[in-house]
Amino acid sequence: MVQNSICQLFGIQYPIIQAGMIWCSGWELASAVSNAGGLGIIGSGSMYPAILEEHVIKCKAAITNNRPFAVNLPLLYPDIDKHIETIIKHQVPIVFTSAGNPKIWTQKLKDQGIKVVHVVSSAKFAAKAEAAGCDAVVAEGFEAGGHNGREETTTLCLIPLVRKAVKIPIIAAGGIATGRAMLATMVLGADAVQIGTRFVASLESSGHTAFKERLVALKEGDTMLSLKKLVAVRLVKNEFYQQVAQAEASGASPTELATLLGRGRAKKGMFEGDLVEGELELGQIAALIDHIKPAAQIVAEIAAEFETAKQEVGGW
Amino acid sequence: MVQNSICQLFGIQYPIIQAGMIWCSGWELASAVSNAGGLGIIGSGSMYPAILEEHVIKCKAAITNNRPFAVNLPLLYPDIDKHIETIIKHQVPIVFTSAGNPKIWTQKLKDQGIKVVHVVSSAKFAAKAEAAGCDAVVAEGFEAGGHNGREETTTLCLIPLVRKAVKIPIIAAGGIATGRAMLATMVLGADAVQIGTRFVASLESSGHTAFKERLVALKEGDTMLSLKKLVAVRLVKNEFYQQVAQAEASGASPTELATLLGRGRAKKGMFEGDLVEGELELGQIAALIDHIKPAAQIVAEIAAEFETAKQEVGGW
Repeated sequence: MVQNSICQLFGIQYPIIQAGMIWCSGWELASAVSNAGGLGIIGSGSMYPAILEEHVIKCKAAITNNRPFAVNLPLLYPDIDKHIETIIKHQVPIVFTSAGNPKIWTQKLKDQGIKVVHVVSSAKFAAKAEAAGCDAVVAEGFEAGGHNGREETTTLCLIPLVRKAVKIPIIAAGGIATGRAMLATMVLGADAVQIGTRFVASLESSGHTAFKERLVALKEGDTMLSLKKLVAVRLVKNEFYQQVAQAEASGASPTELATLLGRGRAKKGMFEGDLVEGELELGQIAALIDHIKPAAQIVAEIAAEFETAKQEVGGW
Repeated sequence: MVQNSICQLFGIQYPIIQAGMIWCSGWELASAVSNAGGLGIIGSGSMYPAILEEHVIKCKAAITNNRPFAVNLPLLYPDIDKHIETIIKHQVPIVFTSAGNPKIWTQKLKDQGIKVVHVVSSAKFAAKAEAAGCDAVVAEGFEAGGHNGREETTTLCLIPLVRKAVKIPIIAAGGIATGRAMLATMVLGADAVQIGTRFVASLESSGHTAFKERLVALKEGDTMLSLKKLVAVRLVKNEFYQQVAQAEASGASPTELATLLGRGRAKKGMFEGDLVEGELELGQIAALIDHIKPAAQIVAEIAAEFETAKQEVGGW
């Protein structure tokens, strides 16, 4: 397996990073991925400060051989000071920031020896992240699950644009679930991949079993970017999504959409398994995923398929 | 350069196909691409029957060494019988069909010894095209310019899904403008690429100069999928697009949108150069394209970059 800038930056074996996701990526998933040679990430966006601390402690205890792990930190998190305190107190080695301005926290984290990666959906914001001192960027395309950029740039278009815009390493995200897609995005200029949806379909993911089962049953066209007047988010087209789509088609205002969305729908759907009324955040590539597997097996399969595809290209 | 199933099927040197596009790809562009070793396509969707015949005759005359070329035929074209007559009469060797049911015409064309390729935006329709006897499919992702599928599946997600669904060769389209993107989509399972937007930015394209100049000035986020209640189409975000977007945001009906669209806007924009009121169909990858060049140079650059990227992968 290629030992590149991202492997060196994080001290990992494979440039395979498991996305930090709300309600789905706690210490069990993050530690399993890190122990398998990738980089596991705890998604702190859905955690109260005390819960994050518990997950960080358990993650460190579960990881062997001093391997690294990371925390994903949405910069709009209301109690962000407390999350930052936990991260520094427990010496989390890497932080992935998202949904906010990287200027505010990057230097403070770096002063503590923490590596900082910011998630962007455009070359313009990638350049801002580089200027803010980030060590790398995640460039996430339109096909990704969950929150998404306004420009709707797909991963295939985004990676070359980001490659032109920055010198720091790029982690491709959105639409990647296999070693072939990993190689494809690296051909485009990425140095690593961040994979979300396929790791939701792991035994260690904290998503509800019903949610995982829905994931592996999804076909093409079963997710859609929604709530664009509010904050664009890719959702499974369940009953809740259809309510939103109808409201949008008849010209609903942002306030009306916010009322319809209400509170706690992501937890209800992904963590509690209410597939009808819940908000189910998944990427388009769910259509390609047919099995729930141990996270270590997912990492191994992706790494092996990457090698096979690489050999194949060598023969062309 | 890889000599694969598509090169053999069409008898071409490079698996690089120039998309048949309304108002932009007449005989000059198609013959230039075919003479450069790719496959040039005349876009018949914007041509009256007599005009298509003129372009086919001129294309054949301009192509050297008996190289092949193709005609793109939208199956909903009102005078389709006459287009078919021209194709058969002048022994056009390859036809790319789109926007309609491949069952109706595929066998009739194949009986004349014509190779038939159908354009699809989903694995489901790819399987139908294979069942209808098509020799190959173009699998076109969400990032492509012009008309587009309802599922909004991106090229990165679409190609592996189509690869699983069919055995016939796959031509990837949408978001491809470089040899790197060509290699990336072939790693995903494609056998060739179809490139539209980058060939609009060629000297030989029949698009208006003002349209080509707008293309090379576009940045990320400057195109958007529009008119989804009518027929989804990716457009440059010009003044006309903004009118549509406003109408859509306030819940305009399909009838209202059809009235707003009116007739002849594609010609007005792309052929006559009215960048304000015209419909400007381009793909997301326009953001990566900075120069207007001869078509032969575009083919040569893509082929050379493909080789460079391939060598690079060999070293990983």
